[in-house]
Amino acid sequence: MTVGRALLTDLYELRMAASFRRRGMDAPATFSLFVRELPPERGFLVACGLDACLDHLEGLAVDDDDLDALTALGLDDLTVEALAGLRFTGDVWAVPEGRVVFAGEPLLEVTAPIAEAQLVETYLLNQVTFATAIASKAARLRLAAADAGLVDFAFRRTHGSEAAMTVARASAIAGFDATSNVEAARRFGLRATGTMAHSYVEAFPSEEDAFRAFAEDNPTNTVLLVDTYDTRTGVRRAIDVIVDLGLSAHAGIRIDSGDLDALARDARRMLDDAGLTETQIFASGGLDEYAIADLVGAGAPIDAFGVGTRMGVSEDAPSLESVYKLVAYDGRPVMKLSTGKATTPGPKQVFRGAQGTFNQMRDVIGLRDETVPEGTDALLVPVMRGGRRTHRETIAAARQRFESDLRLLPTPAVQLRNPVEVSVGLSPRAAALTTRISQELMGRDQASGV
Amino acid sequence: MTVGRALLTDLYELRMAASFRRRGMDAPATFSLFVRELPPERGFLVACGLDACLDHLEGLAVDDDDLDALTALGLDDLTVEALAGLRFTGDVWAVPEGRVVFAGEPLLEVTAPIAEAQLVETYLLNQVTFATAIASKAARLRLAAADAGLVDFAFRRTHGSEAAMTVARASAIAGFDATSNVEAARRFGLRATGTMAHSYVEAFPSEEDAFRAFAEDNPTNTVLLVDTYDTRTGVRRAIDVIVDLGLSAHAGIRIDSGDLDALARDARRMLDDAGLTETQIFASGGLDEYAIADLVGAGAPIDAFGVGTRMGVSEDAPSLESVYKLVAYDGRPVMKLSTGKATTPGPKQVFRGAQGTFNQMRDVIGLRDETVPEGTDALLVPVMRGGRRTHRETIAAARQRFESDLRLLPTPAVQLRNPVEVSVGLSPRAAALTTRISQELMGRDQASGV
Repeated sequence: MTVGRALLTDLYELRMAASFRRRGMDAPATFSLFVRELPPERGFLVACGLDACLDHLEGLAVDDDDLDALTALGLDDLTVEALAGLRFTGDVWAVPEGRVVFAGEPLLEVTAPIAEAQLVETYLLNQVTFATAIASKAARLRLAAADAGLVDFAFRRTHGSEAAMTVARASAIAGFDATSNVEAARRFGLRATGTMAHSYVEAFPSEEDAFRAFAEDNPTNTVLLVDTYDTRTGVRRAIDVIVDLGLSAHAGIRIDSGDLDALARDARRMLDDAGLTETQIFASGGLDEYAIADLVGAGAPIDAFGVGTRMGVSEDAPSLESVYKLVAYDGRPVMKLSTGKATTPGPKQVFRGAQGTFNQMRDVIGLRDETVPEGTDALLVPVMRGGRRTHRETIAAARQRFESDLRLLPTPAVQLRNPVEVSVGLSPRAAALTTRISQELMGRDQASGV
Repeated sequence: MTVGRALLTDLYELRMAASFRRRGMDAPATFSLFVRELPPERGFLVACGLDACLDHLEGLAVDDDDLDALTALGLDDLTVEALAGLRFTGDVWAVPEGRVVFAGEPLLEVTAPIAEAQLVETYLLNQVTFATAIASKAARLRLAAADAGLVDFAFRRTHGSEAAMTVARASAIAGFDATSNVEAARRFGLRATGTMAHSYVEAFPSEEDAFRAFAEDNPTNTVLLVDTYDTRTGVRRAIDVIVDLGLSAHAGIRIDSGDLDALARDARRMLDDAGLTETQIFASGGLDEYAIADLVGAGAPIDAFGVGTRMGVSEDAPSLESVYKLVAYDGRPVMKLSTGKATTPGPKQVFRGAQGTFNQMRDVIGLRDETVPEGTDALLVPVMRGGRRTHRETIAAARQRFESDLRLLPTPAVQLRNPVEVSVGLSPRAAALTTRISQELMGRDQASGV
């Protein structure tokens, strides 16, 4: 158990949980976590964040320190007492990490006594929204980079250091090859990589002195940053050092500013002319999927891209319209009618099939208890039972799932500009239930005279 | 010391630090952290994140576990050995949290043996960039809300749970009144607040049953969410419960969807007609500074706004163009000439004076060793000496500083749309140094024949 974990929530979750418990409302509730609408420029999402959620749920427990803290925050005694001993004992179904998903599809469904299921809303939304936003952005970079390498350089601009860990993990699932983040590499078993900074060059009397020192100290992995003063001069000096020390196969250069296409072409020619055909060219500096697609499309001879900020904060879509909605309570399907925010009732499943000549993805949202239609996969799988994890997998497995899902996406969904989302259907049973519950709710309002 | 803290960095920082140490390059270096350019729609920034930086620097130490981890990640023995025993022993000057700052002004300057100063780049940028981005966004919401209350509702959509803590703290410094984040309230001594969710309403047989149950269980702080089914009906039911239980002064309603202006006016009239003149109206639901300014400008009777995602991820500017640049090494001022990324050399200070009839802010960036011009404040103060913090202050103090700085900003800088940044000058001595170093560097390149 992690101390204070139960306080990683919004105050209203605790208030509601306490009220439910005081009233003996301990029937099971099902909440469904999904993204209402995709941001502009997203044709699909990549499910991510589940592992942290399961870890949290398994370790969640309200202890005496938590109760004291709540009293200190001004909660009344009856509320605080009602929370004593609360832990998570429920079941969770979820879409495994790395799967491609669309708006409206449940990413995760929790079934538990309503107080427990309510309390965890904030944390589950927090983790799934962020990790899914990042994995989805990273997937776009993967599409743009084609066969070139991709390295996560985001740590310095992510929203805190925990965010940097999530970014490294999510981008690894969505096809990044390495990260500059040392702690993330250690924690998740990723490949750590890194070059040198302008400051290193500036600390030496000359650029050539700096290159020589760095190459001597890093003979098996020398990537020289060539744009501190003048890039083409930098390339020439790098070549001298690489040739002198015989490092061709272990060396590279990095260009971090200027016209990357033109500079990379010049550098490639200079390197090749010097016989350094194995020496690689890395590019970085404010890159996003559009810039990378342009460079790759133009045939710029760049072997790998370092991508930082724009991936690490998902700059054009730093959040998703994720929600966590009550869909059933005590065996009764539930829905909400608020203006523009209506929900579909009942525990759900997503059936993924294929259609058309190219065998492309076709999803239908149905009810959990429907028979899985022939020729379709059920996306949600049981991942936790009675508060214990029943699902744990490697980043490599999630990444493999991402890669195979990606191949099944239709072209309009994977284009970088103006992507077209795959439309998701509702099964006849789910549609009928929605109509019935909605009519009941409206009838009830009419019966009460409004 | 926190285990693994030394690994919260990019790999290249460790490689460079090791190389500096192997070469006996232990002369002091000064690095300057600043934001190159403000994002669109920002007329100023609010400095934030310093406290976490100082905490990190004081606790930083490379221990044996770190060295083992680096070996496991593939670093060679000489590099790993060179890092043994490294901790932060330097001095830091910084702009205290809550101060209004502009592009180009150093937020923080580190002077330490170059290996130490280099190693901490990633973490310092990470913390200052994020916290400053959020405080700056929150300040815009504070400007928009005028006298209305502001509550941080961002936890569910921030970039992880650590980010939620930083958001609660940064928004408190920039004038928010409370947070829904329980752990942040506990950790930072903030006011925690919260209402109820739609799911609570849906778990009861009727909206009125739900309102009554919640009010009974929270008699000293009852905020009823009225838009689960039909908002005006919800308001009527809330009034019935509030009147029945005699909770007028401790009660409120929250509207989370629809036309907030029209609904708030109707609700206010209905509440007033029922004699509930003290009952407050809260509004939430995808709000940003523009929506709030419109509501406030139109005179919508809303007492407080809950602001989530758009503040918590700084949606329109989720990152800042922050950099950490070497400006001096071994007593020698240093600068970089890269295309579009040139820097100003030497340790710096910012002198803030006032000008014009309205006594408005006027900043000049000078050198650290310049005499502070009469009638100006020096923004950077010493905050750490020899690796020990010499500066620690409360959130209340930072908030007070923010509020008094805000009053001195000229109108064009505080307008929400198309704000005009306050222009910042360079002192004659700083300008002369920049010219001299730049000419020396270009001369050196010419001398070497390029």
